[in-house]
Amino acid sequence: MDAHAFSDELKRHHLVPLWDVNATLLPKQPKSRMVPYLWRWDAMLPLLKHSGEVVPLSRGAERRVLGFVNPGFPERFGATHTLWGAYQYLLPREVAPAHRHSPGAIRFIVEGNGAFTTVEGDKLIMSRGDLVLTPPWTWHDHGNESDEPMIWFDGLDLPLVNEMEATFYEAFPKDAQPIARPVGDSERRYGLGQLRPTWQRSVGSFSPLLNYKWAATEQALRRLATVDASPHDDVAMEYINPHTGGPLMPTLACFIQLVRAGVRTQAHRHTGSAVYLVFEGRGSSVIDGERFDWRRGDVFVVPSWTWHEHASGDGSEAILFSVHDTPVLQALGLYREQPYTEHGGHQPVERVFSS
Amino acid sequence: MDAHAFSDELKRHHLVPLWDVNATLLPKQPKSRMVPYLWRWDAMLPLLKHSGEVVPLSRGAERRVLGFVNPGFPERFGATHTLWGAYQYLLPREVAPAHRHSPGAIRFIVEGNGAFTTVEGDKLIMSRGDLVLTPPWTWHDHGNESDEPMIWFDGLDLPLVNEMEATFYEAFPKDAQPIARPVGDSERRYGLGQLRPTWQRSVGSFSPLLNYKWAATEQALRRLATVDASPHDDVAMEYINPHTGGPLMPTLACFIQLVRAGVRTQAHRHTGSAVYLVFEGRGSSVIDGERFDWRRGDVFVVPSWTWHEHASGDGSEAILFSVHDTPVLQALGLYREQPYTEHGGHQPVERVFSS
Amino acid sequence: MDAHAFSDELKRHHLVPLWDVNATLLPKQPKSRMVPYLWRWDAMLPLLKHSGEVVPLSRGAERRVLGFVNPGFPERFGATHTLWGAYQYLLPREVAPAHRHSPGAIRFIVEGNGAFTTVEGDKLIMSRGDLVLTPPWTWHDHGNESDEPMIWFDGLDLPLVNEMEATFYEAFPKDAQPIARPVGDSERRYGLGQLRPTWQRSVGSFSPLLNYKWAATEQALRRLATVDASPHDDVAMEYINPHTGGPLMPTLACFIQLVRAGVRTQAHRHTGSAVYLVFEGRGSSVIDGERFDWRRGDVFVVPSWTWHEHASGDGSEAILFSVHDTPVLQALGLYREQPYTEHGGHQPVERVFSS
Amino acid sequence: MDAHAFSDELKRHHLVPLWDVNATLLPKQPKSRMVPYLWRWDAMLPLLKHSGEVVPLSRGAERRVLGFVNPGFPERFGATHTLWGAYQYLLPREVAPAHRHSPGAIRFIVEGNGAFTTVEGDKLIMSRGDLVLTPPWTWHDHGNESDEPMIWFDGLDLPLVNEMEATFYEAFPKDAQPIARPVGDSERRYGLGQLRPTWQRSVGSFSPLLNYKWAATEQALRRLATVDASPHDDVAMEYINPHTGGPLMPTLACFIQLVRAGVRTQAHRHTGSAVYLVFEGRGSSVIDGERFDWRRGDVFVVPSWTWHEHASGDGSEAILFSVHDTPVLQALGLYREQPYTEHGGHQPVERVFSS
Repeated sequence: MDAHAFSDELKRHHLVPLWDVNATLLPKQPKSRMVPYLWRWDAMLPLLKHSGEVVPLSRGAERRVLGFVNPGFPERFGATHTLWGAYQYLLPREVAPAHRHSPGAIRFIVEGNGAFTTVEGDKLIMSRGDLVLTPPWTWHDHGNESDEPMIWFDGLDLPLVNEMEATFYEAFPKDAQPIARPVGDSERRYGLGQLRPTWQRSVGSFSPLLNYKWAATEQALRRLATVDASPHDDVAMEYINPHTGGPLMPTLACFIQLVRAGVRTQAHRHTGSAVYLVFEGRGSSVIDGERFDWRRGDVFVVPSWTWHEHASGDGSEAILFSVHDTPVLQALGLYREQPYTEHGGHQPVERVFSS
Repeated sequence: MDAHAFSDELKRHHLVPLWDVNATLLPKQPKSRMVPYLWRWDAMLPLLKHSGEVVPLSRGAERRVLGFVNPGFPERFGATHTLWGAYQYLLPREVAPAHRHSPGAIRFIVEGNGAFTTVEGDKLIMSRGDLVLTPPWTWHDHGNESDEPMIWFDGLDLPLVNEMEATFYEAFPKDAQPIARPVGDSERRYGLGQLRPTWQRSVGSFSPLLNYKWAATEQALRRLATVDASPHDDVAMEYINPHTGGPLMPTLACFIQLVRAGVRTQAHRHTGSAVYLVFEGRGSSVIDGERFDWRRGDVFVVPSWTWHEHASGDGSEAILFSVHDTPVLQALGLYREQPYTEHGGHQPVERVFSS
Repeated sequence: MDAHAFSDELKRHHLVPLWDVNATLLPKQPKSRMVPYLWRWDAMLPLLKHSGEVVPLSRGAERRVLGFVNPGFPERFGATHTLWGAYQYLLPREVAPAHRHSPGAIRFIVEGNGAFTTVEGDKLIMSRGDLVLTPPWTWHDHGNESDEPMIWFDGLDLPLVNEMEATFYEAFPKDAQPIARPVGDSERRYGLGQLRPTWQRSVGSFSPLLNYKWAATEQALRRLATVDASPHDDVAMEYINPHTGGPLMPTLACFIQLVRAGVRTQAHRHTGSAVYLVFEGRGSSVIDGERFDWRRGDVFVVPSWTWHEHASGDGSEAILFSVHDTPVLQALGLYREQPYTEHGGHQPVERVFSS
Repeated sequence: MDAHAFSDELKRHHLVPLWDVNATLLPKQPKSRMVPYLWRWDAMLPLLKHSGEVVPLSRGAERRVLGFVNPGFPERFGATHTLWGAYQYLLPREVAPAHRHSPGAIRFIVEGNGAFTTVEGDKLIMSRGDLVLTPPWTWHDHGNESDEPMIWFDGLDLPLVNEMEATFYEAFPKDAQPIARPVGDSERRYGLGQLRPTWQRSVGSFSPLLNYKWAATEQALRRLATVDASPHDDVAMEYINPHTGGPLMPTLACFIQLVRAGVRTQAHRHTGSAVYLVFEGRGSSVIDGERFDWRRGDVFVVPSWTWHEHASGDGSEAILFSVHDTPVLQALGLYREQPYTEHGGHQPVERVFSS
């Protein structure tokens, strides 16, 4: 049997010789299939508005959502290999009908006030800057009782759960589920994380607090800013499950991050990917040597094991919200981190992003 | 060898025949050596003031503290078998010198504003209703920078730690330790439990938040009151370590409890003991059939496995602060609880406490 | 802007409208890209032997390994979407040179006695039925000091770790690492899981025991067979980390399973996939209605969310070894299981596998 | 009010001034109320035999047990402040009737073969060297089906549980509970700690394995002796719960310890106490400068925070079994340890124990 025949014979038996694919399967370090990328608010807003005109919500189109598709690997339908990111648009009086799914979701409100998400009978009022959770396999529907369109950022672990072949979906029999509890029930029970009802400790895998209101988030950020900061993220806080100290969900962590005026962070890289949303201000990030200039409403992604650093611009502070798959890497023992040590921790800018 | 001689022989060899002490060592249920008891604010305040006149603080008398001694078992020097409770009195300009010990302590401020406790270089400002922690083996000193005397409640696991033969003590070389951080550092980092610095997760055995300010505590209590309550404790919250969801220390849990106007809770009993402080209002508790009428500043104790229930009085609400040894019972697998089911959950009052 | 133009505009901006891909991204239940499949020992053995003749081990070809490639999704280079399975062949006197990688591996010995694997200086002797671990990022090399070729089964989380973009690889400077400890050090310390050195508790994420010898495994299996069995797996045991009770690695669980003579298990399905190796005996499995007849040395796979059941054949018992990705699903909150309740728990056989 | 009147007034109100008791309540380091002590087998055996003649077992005298009473604090009825130790004596054909209690117990068999303990319907056969568990609140009775008296060592957390005011006791309606499972059920399921039934993971607070047979214990000890040892305990292993890696019970840890021929360990001290049983050989221990010479069957205690070291004697090895309250200290954050560094780690012998 010559080499060619041997190779054919292996293929016929659905076997692969490791020595042929060794370098591909075991690279010295990860090379993401994803690319750093930025989506501009100015480009997306007209498209969202147009979709509001042409796409009515229905059981066939349950959500009016534009998902960010990473150009490096568009078949995955994700902003990164594990994370779905999107903008959702809900018109006054509309209802996005109730359903549930095994992927978990977070919503971060960007425009408008007065819409709501109902999660398992708990009606959560959504205002700019609020972070709302719809944990895995919980019934949820959205409604807009205000007179203005609402826009929020959706973050899901959908690409990961699909990849893990573990996605389940179910539609609720009616468009809106009944409101079974006082409005904002979870906030009233758990809204100050340092105290909890003596008779209630959530032992589930996700946070019992379903709405992290902006006022408290900002207060926490401002207080921390007076005492400490990270060299890589400046004043950055993780939203936590106060009954465990861990991330909001086993697959997702959320950060809020104040880059103070004049600050440029030092670069580092780590396994795991992230989607960033510019909540306030403007500035820039350098990702693997490419500079991305961003302003309010823009969204950008940092793929796994890429160098990245952030800077506020125009002499003002900036606030970034972000979603990370870090808990997955940590749970599986795959988290690894490395600081960038050359050039005082700052990458040389080799390219400037333009779309 | 007759029975008498045998018994002598056993004693001589430091042996005890189990059949002689079986019933004592293995009772059907616990019978606490402690008794329910109440200390009156009106009786204690003059004594505290007098001690302020006659006892100067010094290295020989590091704290001006009057400890509650349970009349059932005074040798233990505890309010219960595991818990030390006391009132501490600090005059304007005084300093209670720095030391550390393996027993952990909490302070709940009853009178005054503007004193401070420094814990490992973090200066904590103390105002009425604040809960301040001095965790095990942390350097701490107290000072009063205001013009009025301060009074606070001290809760410690001292009787337990002594009983476990694990007490260590050390004096700091100077009266006051240096202030090494911005004032209120822990509040600024961890003061809203649902967020934490991304780079910092306390993995120690006690809460990283050292000062639970009254404003937030009250807000949490008022919010919870709008949605839920416990049949045995009414609107009760546990102060938690938001990085674990667990108690403040492995040996101590603290509760704040709103007994709404007109509420009388149902009785239950459990292993573990508690010291209660009346923070606001008046009311009464029935403990093993004895009624204790209480008002602001009074302190009372509930021994292990005694029936107890609480009621607010005069048509107004009351607020109770309490310290519990429950975490010990739970960690050792010894926690057990039983509701009182007769008479609609209320004990017949057989005696009324008077001291 | 008509529908076509809108669609083009979205694509140009790397956005996807969720309403177009909803059904694909959120299926009612998982549909694995993988297919059930079986690889025959009789077909593989000649190919392994041939590879022994034509492929010398070297730094370019560090392992003589034939990997099972699932025909349903061959681009993934895995037996399932998360698991690499393979047969490895090592000739007398050969050394498979030392390296380390972030994916973790297990070896289950199928043919031969007297080879070894060295893991971080601990030389592990490999005999038929032994389970040997080379945990993530540990230096390991293999050698064959016997006069016969060795064949073992390799199980790795490689497809998962690659998919998570977290693969790191490093070659050791020399072919064989130094033996730094007494031979079988981990077995001597931890080989009976119910006792451990008082001064040593492994707090790492993988088992401190690196070699699970067949004699003990079989003894455990035989003992359990006298008292209990699972309806779905018959007499099945998980190899555990005795210092945590958890799986061998965060990404991998290993089972050993005795299907007693005459037993046919009831079907069930669950998220997560598995690779089975027939260690002893013969029998058959039905997977999603297709019957796979197997005998010693055969390997077959069960994809995520497929119905499966096992039966021993010929009136004799069978022993199956298997590798599972279950810990991943459980850590991420994605594990779900369902028993097959029709037809007395047995699937109708609609096809019989032939390759 | 003069000092005397003030003091009286405080007493009358059940208050203690901390400045009076400061030094007592907060010593610089623990001073155990217990003393090191040794009970001789030669003295106890005749007393056990005599009790066999004069004390028939009955519901009034459910166990024929001689408890070790520490002379330092006899009122506690413990070998140490937290641990009950005793010898139990059971004649041929006798039954020690079934009961349960919240304190947990271990039995280590010293003389005889062929008695049994039934725990929750699981009949455990007891032979010399076996360690048998009767966890908290489990029904248990003992019987002797052999022709010889049985003697075993009892270790309980009884003084601790009593001190914690958490002791519950209940008698079983009949003398012997029914045997509900195959004999030795727990050994068959969990007897090799590195494997467990796939469908069964004990999440309780005590070990699911109820009988640690001597053959496996000795094998583990001999294997470990070939590779490692502790400076303070020589070849020492902890019996663990293989489903958690933790101690047998939350309140008790058990060690088996081989002091090799010619070995004298280095002294250290730690919070927490221990009861030692000499299983094989002879030797001596130095505890706070007092030498205790021991031989087979002797029992001795090491109080909290006392220096201790062990040596085998007569040029032969010795084997010690011991019970510790260490898990309590660790759970409560009170464990502290210190090596003795003077004189090459060995204490000067200032006294020799004689009873």
